[in-house]
Amino acid sequence: MKRLTLLSCAAIVLLNLSLADEGMYPISEIRKLNLRAKGLKIDPNEVYNPNGISLIDGIVQLGGCTGSFVSKDGLILTNHHCAFGFVQAVSTPEKDYLTNGFIAWNRSEEIPAKGQTARITESYRDVSKEVLSAVHDRMELAERSKAIDRKMREIIDETEKQNPGKRAVVAEMFAGKTYVLFVYTYLRDVRLVYVPPRSIGEFGGENDNWVWPRHTGDFSFFRAYVAPDGSPADYSPDNVPYHPRKFLKVNPAGVDEGDFVFILGYPGRTYRHRTSHYLAYEEQYRMPFVVDLYDWQIATMEEMGKNDRAIALKHDARIKGLANTMKNYRGKLLGMKRLRLVDRRAEEENGLQRFIDADPSRKALYRTVLEEIGAIYQEMSSQAASEMVLDYLRGSSMMLSYGFTVYESALELQKPDLERLSSYTERNLENTKRGLQRSLQSYYEPTDKAFLKNLLMQAIKLPPSQRIAALDDILKGGDAELAIDRFIQTAYAQSKLNDEKFLLDAFGGKPEQVEQMSDPFVQLAKALYPVYLKLRETRQRRDGALSKLSALLVDAKQQFEKTSFIPDANSTLRLTFGYIRGYSPADATYYKPITTLTGVIEKTTDEYPYATPQKARDLYKQKDFGRYRNAKLNDVPVAILYNMDTTGGNSGSPVLDARGQLVGVNFDRAFEATINDYAWSESYSRSIAVDIRYVLWVTEKVGEAHHLLKEMNVF
Amino acid sequence: MKRLTLLSCAAIVLLNLSLADEGMYPISEIRKLNLRAKGLKIDPNEVYNPNGISLIDGIVQLGGCTGSFVSKDGLILTNHHCAFGFVQAVSTPEKDYLTNGFIAWNRSEEIPAKGQTARITESYRDVSKEVLSAVHDRMELAERSKAIDRKMREIIDETEKQNPGKRAVVAEMFAGKTYVLFVYTYLRDVRLVYVPPRSIGEFGGENDNWVWPRHTGDFSFFRAYVAPDGSPADYSPDNVPYHPRKFLKVNPAGVDEGDFVFILGYPGRTYRHRTSHYLAYEEQYRMPFVVDLYDWQIATMEEMGKNDRAIALKHDARIKGLANTMKNYRGKLLGMKRLRLVDRRAEEENGLQRFIDADPSRKALYRTVLEEIGAIYQEMSSQAASEMVLDYLRGSSMMLSYGFTVYESALELQKPDLERLSSYTERNLENTKRGLQRSLQSYYEPTDKAFLKNLLMQAIKLPPSQRIAALDDILKGGDAELAIDRFIQTAYAQSKLNDEKFLLDAFGGKPEQVEQMSDPFVQLAKALYPVYLKLRETRQRRDGALSKLSALLVDAKQQFEKTSFIPDANSTLRLTFGYIRGYSPADATYYKPITTLTGVIEKTTDEYPYATPQKARDLYKQKDFGRYRNAKLNDVPVAILYNMDTTGGNSGSPVLDARGQLVGVNFDRAFEATINDYAWSESYSRSIAVDIRYVLWVTEKVGEAHHLLKEMNVF
Repeated sequence: MKRLTLLSCAAIVLLNLSLADEGMYPISEIRKLNLRAKGLKIDPNEVYNPNGISLIDGIVQLGGCTGSFVSKDGLILTNHHCAFGFVQAVSTPEKDYLTNGFIAWNRSEEIPAKGQTARITESYRDVSKEVLSAVHDRMELAERSKAIDRKMREIIDETEKQNPGKRAVVAEMFAGKTYVLFVYTYLRDVRLVYVPPRSIGEFGGENDNWVWPRHTGDFSFFRAYVAPDGSPADYSPDNVPYHPRKFLKVNPAGVDEGDFVFILGYPGRTYRHRTSHYLAYEEQYRMPFVVDLYDWQIATMEEMGKNDRAIALKHDARIKGLANTMKNYRGKLLGMKRLRLVDRRAEEENGLQRFIDADPSRKALYRTVLEEIGAIYQEMSSQAASEMVLDYLRGSSMMLSYGFTVYESALELQKPDLERLSSYTERNLENTKRGLQRSLQSYYEPTDKAFLKNLLMQAIKLPPSQRIAALDDILKGGDAELAIDRFIQTAYAQSKLNDEKFLLDAFGGKPEQVEQMSDPFVQLAKALYPVYLKLRETRQRRDGALSKLSALLVDAKQQFEKTSFIPDANSTLRLTFGYIRGYSPADATYYKPITTLTGVIEKTTDEYPYATPQKARDLYKQKDFGRYRNAKLNDVPVAILYNMDTTGGNSGSPVLDARGQLVGVNFDRAFEATINDYAWSESYSRSIAVDIRYVLWVTEKVGEAHHLLKEMNVF
Repeated sequence: MKRLTLLSCAAIVLLNLSLADEGMYPISEIRKLNLRAKGLKIDPNEVYNPNGISLIDGIVQLGGCTGSFVSKDGLILTNHHCAFGFVQAVSTPEKDYLTNGFIAWNRSEEIPAKGQTARITESYRDVSKEVLSAVHDRMELAERSKAIDRKMREIIDETEKQNPGKRAVVAEMFAGKTYVLFVYTYLRDVRLVYVPPRSIGEFGGENDNWVWPRHTGDFSFFRAYVAPDGSPADYSPDNVPYHPRKFLKVNPAGVDEGDFVFILGYPGRTYRHRTSHYLAYEEQYRMPFVVDLYDWQIATMEEMGKNDRAIALKHDARIKGLANTMKNYRGKLLGMKRLRLVDRRAEEENGLQRFIDADPSRKALYRTVLEEIGAIYQEMSSQAASEMVLDYLRGSSMMLSYGFTVYESALELQKPDLERLSSYTERNLENTKRGLQRSLQSYYEPTDKAFLKNLLMQAIKLPPSQRIAALDDILKGGDAELAIDRFIQTAYAQSKLNDEKFLLDAFGGKPEQVEQMSDPFVQLAKALYPVYLKLRETRQRRDGALSKLSALLVDAKQQFEKTSFIPDANSTLRLTFGYIRGYSPADATYYKPITTLTGVIEKTTDEYPYATPQKARDLYKQKDFGRYRNAKLNDVPVAILYNMDTTGGNSGSPVLDARGQLVGVNFDRAFEATINDYAWSESYSRSIAVDIRYVLWVTEKVGEAHHLLKEMNVF
């Protein structure tokens, strides 16, 4: 397999790496880290070797998660919560795999995880120069943003043509400054192999989410399949297991407190290079809005599903997703307040400003950068209420979102592929349709009605300066709430968008047809569409400005701080390293870094989310720890804690020991570490994995899936 | 001062004391404890000496709390929460001592704490034989209960006649088995001296209540006054400070982890000798009812006071009291579930039953004891709903409780003193009237109406087998809720019971006058009175039976377990000892036993209950720790944790070091230790004190009350 050449990322200045604990290092930087001195006991070339096979070839990106190959036959180990939606989709009240777990006793029993893909990084190179060749200083800002976008698409297209069967992505490393082209293999036939009962895989539920000490068996197994000729293919019964170039060796002996560990994975987004203005906007406007909205939406869904398991099943994944975000934001809001993050960032910026102003040449280049960034967020704040309502109005009601998709697809498919919104490009069309099908399985009309009403009510209550005039026309006459109720009653009675065939037929229709469609949600989407177009234009202008200003800001900061800069996470392959380590979350409190099966049993009750299966309770009673007993603890280790730098997207990442063997599956952070996305803290930034010993104990003793242990060479 | 002779308490069998950590030891048992081997560095005679002066002479009971004399001039150190109600009573929105704290800069500024008393134990002796001489085996059960009661009153009367100016109490140590007569001095003029701001004294509020790690400066100072001739007296400007026989020496150096400590105090109630039937009744009926009721009552009061500080002030103490109980019960319910307490107690009882059945002579004596106890709780359970409503109906609405007091006082005052309910005996009459006056200060009509309606609604919804027929007559006609609303509207419009003069005039009137009173609450009380009389009779019968059965049970258990028995706490003077010690509340978590000022600052926000005063924040910023800095922590210790056995009533108790010097003021237990009242656990039973170093730091640095430090000889 041909691999592209590695070019260095010019802007990644790594000065003080030997001291830094912070860091989601781009894979290109590994050899600068001196990992052997940190504790690595193998050649760094075994971790990443651009000219050969190395551990990174055993890492896959699964949607928003990471996973790793743990057998030569494409067996993938990742988190339970990364499989949750797929398990939910194939669960029914009769075959409730979500509740009871799922085991394929042989390959023919493995269930296709419709929509799941496994993405493997093949290569990457710096394309900053090519991307930035598309812009010039005097360009209008929205145009600048579009030009960068267009150029990135061109590079992607060209690369994919040169690499048939592969897919390319251009990732922005530093906004407006550094761009890297990644080439991926996408495996499209991924199947469920083993999922523990929810009472293990999601033990502790939302109570324990973002919490240490943790006792969640958050793991599951998939398997990747390819066509008999080895090429990526959609599901077919003729497909064969994929043979990865590399699979990770599982180490059933695990790790101990203080041990060196590292993670390879695909962290999603961090915002550490953003200014105080961004942080203030998040703290004052966006996060409180989302927390309030999700809080209400979750309560509504819980109420709807209270007495009907089938309805509850429809809502499960959505509740889980919203609750996860909500608690994360609450943690961030608490952390920002306690750490006075906005003030501290502003103080740093004052220092930077003084540094800039102290030298005439710097002053000429950078004097107004911070001020201009501030002005953009000022504008955003003044429109925050209506922009937030618009953002969540479109997506909270599925019916309205279908209306938008139908209407928008008709318009977008008229455009040349390069100019379309990403969901409607040829390469993504099938995915978008699959997403529609999948989402229909969660549709429940009373919930959808309630969500729509809630956001329409918020919309009509906006202050005069932020009113959405288009809605006034729709909700004409007298009392606004009555008008909303009337509209909702009629619209849901008339619309057929929740009919899968109708919806897919309507998708991507001719504009003139869609314009004429009498479906009330398509009509509502049409009426609101100009508002969204204007908002998109506004944001392109802001992004263009921020992209230009951010590049200048990074330049100025590098001169000022003379210290290491690591690009914010952006869903590309990264390495982070550290140690199994506890922490003190508060005065007089110390958390140890390894939890135990005894802890699971102590938390166990007969009720969700602490209802450990009877079989596991019995095994514990009999002290049947098998080969997974840790002598020091005289117990089975369940979860481990470490001071590595992770964020969303690292879910399912392998935790590797000094010899590069798999000792855990990363799945969460401690509550104090939610602030991680905005700022690193050596005292608080701790991430959590399910210990490989618990993975294996559950799989062997509770699941009795001996064939999987054999496949992983654990027997 | 003449002191009565000490007799041994025959039934207190102390076999394995050297091993036992559990224990609220009656003061008579101290010398059997071998405290020197445990760590005490002074002669146990200095702790308790029946023939001379010792530390116990420095301990006072303050209502439901404990306190200690800390100067020769009657200065008393206790908890902030023990002063709360008194501070509230003298606070106004203008002079808000509750919020801002209070300092008397000289003795003339000290404020009388109306209703506060300081009780000092003078002596005690075993009176079991005398009490039990009043009963015989074939007595009817309700009669038995009354006979014991009457006998205890006789002993008290006689003792008080022999000891002019003193008050006597007969305490039941083991139900139906052991009784001890205590003689007390009551000081009736007690004044507020220093109360820290609420943001220190109640730092953390309900969030942190029953929680470790803790950062609450829960202390305050009172002073006891007597007549110029040294005799106890009501408040008078001519009174002079009381000179205690003994005052405790404050040790500003404090303690460290692992140090030996002991507590002298007046623990209120424990229930460790009760059977599984009692625990099940508590778990299934009483505690859930109270938790639900208080939860609703608190929410109602908070809503009422939301926008009006004066109303909020009226509710403050009541909210605090209810919330405290509610959280305690929640902790207990959780602990009972986790420890499977009912099941485990039942298993122990099964073992006891087998032991009884194994021997013919034991069988003859004890065979049906457990079964008979079970039958009583069975009966209670079948009537639980209505009995609970009756218990809380009478007290939740102040107006209805006034109606009852007026009606009942008329009836009771007709009886000979010995036969009256305790509140209406001559010795308690003044206290009862003072209670009425005090409670009127918290009266707020809308809240009172809501509480009454809530309980009347619960009453009318009782199942047919438990209906309160008397209410049906009052709430005649059509819709019951409408009838309740109508009754409430009329009753509150007509009644004058919330007029202090009217209420006190009506109190203790002639029966024929009261019978004729048109006041609607007196009328309601009159209508319900027979129901309450019947309930009282029922309970006397049950208590009589339980008293007899419990005595037999204790006999059988002593033969079975051959181990140490300590009587349940009963508000008499006890000693408990232990060590400054952390604990592990859960897997992978360790709590250290000393918190710090840094922890206070970390929890601090600008909002209640974490709004540390600016002065304290500034002092912290300047690291102005004065003489209270602990070198190891490089910080001011704030709270300490220890494995001593405490319960409610121990609030304000001095924590004493190996030399008998005061190093802390006990104020709470860890959440896991709420279960303490039902069962001791070496792993979880931890109590909490405010560290003397924090008491002194706040008093000196924040309060600048240097005169108090001088008075305690700390300067």
